[in-house]
Amino acid sequence: MNTLNLQKRFLALRSNKGFELFVVAVILFSAVVVGAKTYDLPESMLTLVAWLDHFITVIFLVELIVRFIGEENKRHFFKNGWNIFDTIIVVASLIPVNESEMAFIGRLLRIFRVLRMVSIIPELRVLLNSLLKALPQLGYVMLLMFIIFYIYAAIGATLFASINPELWGDISISLLTLFRVMTFEDWTDVMYETMAVYGFSWIYYLTFIFLTAFAFLNMVIGIVVSVIEKENAIEEAAHSTEPTMADLQSEIQSLKAMVSQLAKHDEPNKGNE
Amino acid sequence: MNTLNLQKRFLALRSNKGFELFVVAVILFSAVVVGAKTYDLPESMLTLVAWLDHFITVIFLVELIVRFIGEENKRHFFKNGWNIFDTIIVVASLIPVNESEMAFIGRLLRIFRVLRMVSIIPELRVLLNSLLKALPQLGYVMLLMFIIFYIYAAIGATLFASINPELWGDISISLLTLFRVMTFEDWTDVMYETMAVYGFSWIYYLTFIFLTAFAFLNMVIGIVVSVIEKENAIEEAAHSTEPTMADLQSEIQSLKAMVSQLAKHDEPNKGNE
Amino acid sequence: MNTLNLQKRFLALRSNKGFELFVVAVILFSAVVVGAKTYDLPESMLTLVAWLDHFITVIFLVELIVRFIGEENKRHFFKNGWNIFDTIIVVASLIPVNESEMAFIGRLLRIFRVLRMVSIIPELRVLLNSLLKALPQLGYVMLLMFIIFYIYAAIGATLFASINPELWGDISISLLTLFRVMTFEDWTDVMYETMAVYGFSWIYYLTFIFLTAFAFLNMVIGIVVSVIEKENAIEEAAHSTEPTMADLQSEIQSLKAMVSQLAKHDEPNKGNE
Amino acid sequence: MNTLNLQKRFLALRSNKGFELFVVAVILFSAVVVGAKTYDLPESMLTLVAWLDHFITVIFLVELIVRFIGEENKRHFFKNGWNIFDTIIVVASLIPVNESEMAFIGRLLRIFRVLRMVSIIPELRVLLNSLLKALPQLGYVMLLMFIIFYIYAAIGATLFASINPELWGDISISLLTLFRVMTFEDWTDVMYETMAVYGFSWIYYLTFIFLTAFAFLNMVIGIVVSVIEKENAIEEAAHSTEPTMADLQSEIQSLKAMVSQLAKHDEPNKGNE
Repeated sequence: MNTLNLQKRFLALRSNKGFELFVVAVILFSAVVVGAKTYDLPESMLTLVAWLDHFITVIFLVELIVRFIGEENKRHFFKNGWNIFDTIIVVASLIPVNESEMAFIGRLLRIFRVLRMVSIIPELRVLLNSLLKALPQLGYVMLLMFIIFYIYAAIGATLFASINPELWGDISISLLTLFRVMTFEDWTDVMYETMAVYGFSWIYYLTFIFLTAFAFLNMVIGIVVSVIEKENAIEEAAHSTEPTMADLQSEIQSLKAMVSQLAKHDEPNKGNE
Repeated sequence: MNTLNLQKRFLALRSNKGFELFVVAVILFSAVVVGAKTYDLPESMLTLVAWLDHFITVIFLVELIVRFIGEENKRHFFKNGWNIFDTIIVVASLIPVNESEMAFIGRLLRIFRVLRMVSIIPELRVLLNSLLKALPQLGYVMLLMFIIFYIYAAIGATLFASINPELWGDISISLLTLFRVMTFEDWTDVMYETMAVYGFSWIYYLTFIFLTAFAFLNMVIGIVVSVIEKENAIEEAAHSTEPTMADLQSEIQSLKAMVSQLAKHDEPNKGNE
Repeated sequence: MNTLNLQKRFLALRSNKGFELFVVAVILFSAVVVGAKTYDLPESMLTLVAWLDHFITVIFLVELIVRFIGEENKRHFFKNGWNIFDTIIVVASLIPVNESEMAFIGRLLRIFRVLRMVSIIPELRVLLNSLLKALPQLGYVMLLMFIIFYIYAAIGATLFASINPELWGDISISLLTLFRVMTFEDWTDVMYETMAVYGFSWIYYLTFIFLTAFAFLNMVIGIVVSVIEKENAIEEAAHSTEPTMADLQSEIQSLKAMVSQLAKHDEPNKGNE
Repeated sequence: MNTLNLQKRFLALRSNKGFELFVVAVILFSAVVVGAKTYDLPESMLTLVAWLDHFITVIFLVELIVRFIGEENKRHFFKNGWNIFDTIIVVASLIPVNESEMAFIGRLLRIFRVLRMVSIIPELRVLLNSLLKALPQLGYVMLLMFIIFYIYAAIGATLFASINPELWGDISISLLTLFRVMTFEDWTDVMYETMAVYGFSWIYYLTFIFLTAFAFLNMVIGIVVSVIEKENAIEEAAHSTEPTMADLQSEIQSLKAMVSQLAKHDEPNKGNE
């Protein structure tokens, strides 16, 4: 009974607007601390930052415990991806890091605390979900694009490896070089180098740029169209107070039945006379 | 009585088309003067330009006074952002600037006079307002984009600061470097430098480019869709002479009532016989 | 009578499909000759090319005369922009060019012969017209964009002229440099140079990129929306066989009139009994 | 009879899901082998890769034979473009290549085996077909773009050939340089070089960028609009259960006929009295 009472109290605390705002403020503050650590700070400041770090870790730990106790069904807690993420971040922050190797990983973990912003602000969570939903649609276009990349990288590594091993040494280096060509980053330097040996290699670059640009455009249009379709579907649902064509049709049909009923009543009437 | 009369006269002057065109001409002329000052001019020309500057300042002052006196409610005058902007520009131009420091700021202020073009031409004011209205919609996408930038900048400053402090020295420098990477400006030079130390740092750059490009695309699509929706809403409103589905439904229902009324009249008729 | 007969014969020739195809072939051939002249050719080939040039000029002259005689109303001939263009090209080709200065202009004129492709192929003419029609819509956006460019160029020329006169010497050079920044072409080199003197000049570049990118996006969306609207309007017109809501409404109303007429007939009928 | 039986068995094998998955696995494996060959491999690995190559060739040959025997009408087999492609790849792989020249072509042929992925996975085939269908629409825009490119290349080769023959030597080199300018790849270096001789050559570059960007935008919009139209047409067809306006109209008209029939019955009725 006591435990249940505690759970309800913590659930209330967790849903409290003030508590949420406080957590957002702490996350913002942790982002500032993360940023501050990248500057060359005097010894005294470093000590302060270390203390602030501990302070943020403690608050995050308390918030996590509040959320965990506040959860009605403890099993559900770890089914939520963001809860698992939060737990890993907090637990990892608790491990004392003295060795330089571990300290490094600890610093990186503290940077990912900023991502908690997304888990706390509902609008950002919605936005991220809508972005993720658009991804599978693009699956086959990305596969086609990867096949184009792979074939060109294999050709590039076969033909140009001896010209410049740093750009075309093997297939993985070639893939990186082709990504560079797609972003138009000094792509002519890459091309002129190979054109000195293979005069017709401009065909390789131009067809690659056309194919990937075309596939990329198709991907962009795919997103645009699907987003517009969804918006229209939502719009239509919103206008549901308006009767549909089918509604009108059934109304007209019931009217027809009434008229034909009237006609039947009329006819015997006529016959009687 | 005299003051009111004066106000009405000035209001008339201010609304006069010729007066407006004259002001536009003076602004255009001030733009030319601003441009001319960036060239190496002989001494005689510089004196002329200085005189022209004073001449423009005086005209702007007169125009501002006309507009202020022409305003019915003097308090409203300073509620309009563009009026405040105009007043600051004119008043600041009046302050005599002899010291080189102040002269510099004076020159900058004179450049912003060209912006008065937007406040004078109504079509530009409408365009700017529609641009500003699209901004808040993009708020959360820009926040998400900033979080991505911030996390990558923090990681970059942590990992790469020792490799090239000019690009990754602290978080603000890293943010600038990442903006550069997003514009594809010599981003491979930045990448190859860090890949020499951390072989897998290409993952850092590629994921960053994909994430920001994806977020940016979403932003663009967001604008496109919202603009199209608005246009369609305006279009629909324009076609309001066309009856709606609901109109048709009510017509059919009133027809039904008529037929059922007819049926009732008919029945007693039949009963009588 | 003889002249009229000639005109009709030439009009028939001009509308002849074979004649048109022959002219297209000659234009294509002139394009090849124009291309060939840019290569280092042996003396014999140069003589051949010169002869081909004269041959093409003669054919173009004959075609122009055919078209002119074939024109019913001679005054209309020079109201068509493409006819004027063709006449200038042909007449200018006739002037003998011996001096090197004039020969140069003659070569340029021969290049513009390729543009006759657009005037001959109707689909290209339609495409060009639709492109030109989209231009005025963009007028105010381009004006706003130019104002942004002008203000930034004036600020740039004022602040950075002493740092690098080659990039920021005067307002016209600054405008070119800003166009370069907008295309992201080595814009960081330009920025880092000025940041060495004015540490906060990154604000100048970033705000410029955001403003111009935003204005540019708005321009693109403006075209997209207007094109889609036009397409939809054409689509709607094509589906005109489908009755409109107003058609249905008038049908229902005429039905109502019939029923109410029926009710009136019925009532006296009832009264009689 | 025996042959027919064999054909049916092979057709069954070919349509078998397990067989298809096995072929996809072999293609994926061949892609990995193609990638592996671009690395510096020890002698033992090279022998293994050569054996794997033979193994893949044999499987592809068997699969091709199965598909050929499985085909009901042997003439249809070579009407399918992908079958011809597969046959060429397999037959070319069978030819023993000892000379270095031929070995080179053999390696390239093995790379194109990865493309068989597209012929095997139906979704990719559909995607590729939809991409190819969008191409003809763009035909005239691409022709217009090529005319712009050709004229600018001819002007460039005429004016700038003496300044930098490597960039403007003849019309084909100029076309490549202009493509580079369109991708904004170090285009200012190209421009500044010619501006040193012809001060006004920035007009050449800026008009070229505007014209090609404008034509390109039109092409992109062309695709977007046509894709949206198609999607809408499919959507409409899907909603065919909903009655159309014409359906409603015919219903109302039949109702009218009924009412007018009723009126006729009524009138003689009235006359009798």
